[in-house]
Amino acid sequence: MNLIDSIAAFRSHSARLARPLGLVPTMGALHDGHMSLVRRARRENAALAATIFVNPAQFGPREDYHAYPRDLDADLRKLQDAGADVVFAPSAAEMYPAGFDTYVDVGIAERLEGAARPGHFRGVATIVCKLLTIVRPDRAYFGQKDAQQALVIERLNADLNLGAQIITCPTVREPDGLALSSRNAYLDPDERAAAAVLYRALTRARGAASPDAARRLVLAHVEAEPLASLEYVSVADAETLEELDTLDRPALVSLAVRVGAARLIDNILIE
Amino acid sequence: MNLIDSIAAFRSHSARLARPLGLVPTMGALHDGHMSLVRRARRENAALAATIFVNPAQFGPREDYHAYPRDLDADLRKLQDAGADVVFAPSAAEMYPAGFDTYVDVGIAERLEGAARPGHFRGVATIVCKLLTIVRPDRAYFGQKDAQQALVIERLNADLNLGAQIITCPTVREPDGLALSSRNAYLDPDERAAAAVLYRALTRARGAASPDAARRLVLAHVEAEPLASLEYVSVADAETLEELDTLDRPALVSLAVRVGAARLIDNILIE
Repeated sequence: MNLIDSIAAFRSHSARLARPLGLVPTMGALHDGHMSLVRRARRENAALAATIFVNPAQFGPREDYHAYPRDLDADLRKLQDAGADVVFAPSAAEMYPAGFDTYVDVGIAERLEGAARPGHFRGVATIVCKLLTIVRPDRAYFGQKDAQQALVIERLNADLNLGAQIITCPTVREPDGLALSSRNAYLDPDERAAAAVLYRALTRARGAASPDAARRLVLAHVEAEPLASLEYVSVADAETLEELDTLDRPALVSLAVRVGAARLIDNILIE
Repeated sequence: MNLIDSIAAFRSHSARLARPLGLVPTMGALHDGHMSLVRRARRENAALAATIFVNPAQFGPREDYHAYPRDLDADLRKLQDAGADVVFAPSAAEMYPAGFDTYVDVGIAERLEGAARPGHFRGVATIVCKLLTIVRPDRAYFGQKDAQQALVIERLNADLNLGAQIITCPTVREPDGLALSSRNAYLDPDERAAAAVLYRALTRARGAASPDAARRLVLAHVEAEPLASLEYVSVADAETLEELDTLDRPALVSLAVRVGAARLIDNILIE
């Protein structure tokens, strides 16, 4: 497995990779959610690239960029064991050199996480655009846990003709339903137990008669957990993310919850 | 010469083109300014692609999108005679299908033409990003007449790792100095004569002792032409486009002038 940290070196290396080429972009701190993407990409492609880059542009000024977990050595071992051919792990200065001044925006980014985290999806869209133009994969794999991110990336990949197939993979969960996330590392044992409330609340919403009933069920369920604080709950059109008044089409039920120092998100689809 | 109007067809065709591949993106209505880019690109590359697309996204709601000159047959004859291998001339629906919602912004686009034409450079940056990702040229050629556009394109090509070499070619002028522009077709004979004032004013500014003196010289010169009306004159850092107080570095002297129904721009560099 090759480890490459410069764009120019990646480009000259990638010309020698087999096709189809699968890409799994990550911010490192790899858990089994990431590895489920890696395993699927390994199965479906002749060559497999992963990227590890904690992207400063998608963190707000009061968010956890510096605290975000990093463990490059462990990540590289996991990727090697999973059969990755090449890992691209650039520095922030390599991706955002002095004078950098270009930004990619997607309209759907204004809702939900985009409203809660101004600038977040501009950072996501810009870095994913860069990674797709640098790596030029045939397929790129993302997780359904970040449902809005997946929609943003599908949109920009299609609109800017980046030529990849975007594949969104199911959320991987702990036995109690908590979605795997690098930010779960922020939780102490009590908070970790309390964090199961996100998925429990989502599953309760599945049987609701209306979007409003679903939102009320989620709110009541999260509020009953003393260590958890609901930031938002949404029942939205699964493609446009417009909030729904009636359950007349596929809906994304999503929420953001603070548990201790962690801000956690999760979602389910209702067909 | 092949004429292609779909992105998918261009992609499968372009894999068979020789390398290096040169690209001349145009809005059609080709004049000798465009053809100077085409001739240079032909000399410097093994294969030559041109695009013809009047990009609605870079026209404001009260601008001349519908009036903009179009003459596809004449354009194709000129490109064939100049030795182009392929012309990509998509429809607006091919480039901006229903649901399109992604935009590329470059910081330097906020000044000068960007301030005068809100949204213009977002449209330019988005379409050029798309054309570069569709065509994937080794070199792309643009005119110095649109100096700020060239800076925007250099920036986004570098920042989004699009991998082309951006080549900015000298402005081509009529014998009286008027820069060639498709919009010169809007001028009646009296206006056409008056339009020579742009370049005359710029050349007067060349000897000025300070940016302010240069701006005053240009203003006075344009105001003396009854058919011309100055929209702005700028003396700015040639790289950042920040307005200058002293001539202590390479400067771009640029102006926008209305002559009849035409809005004309021009510029010179002062080293």
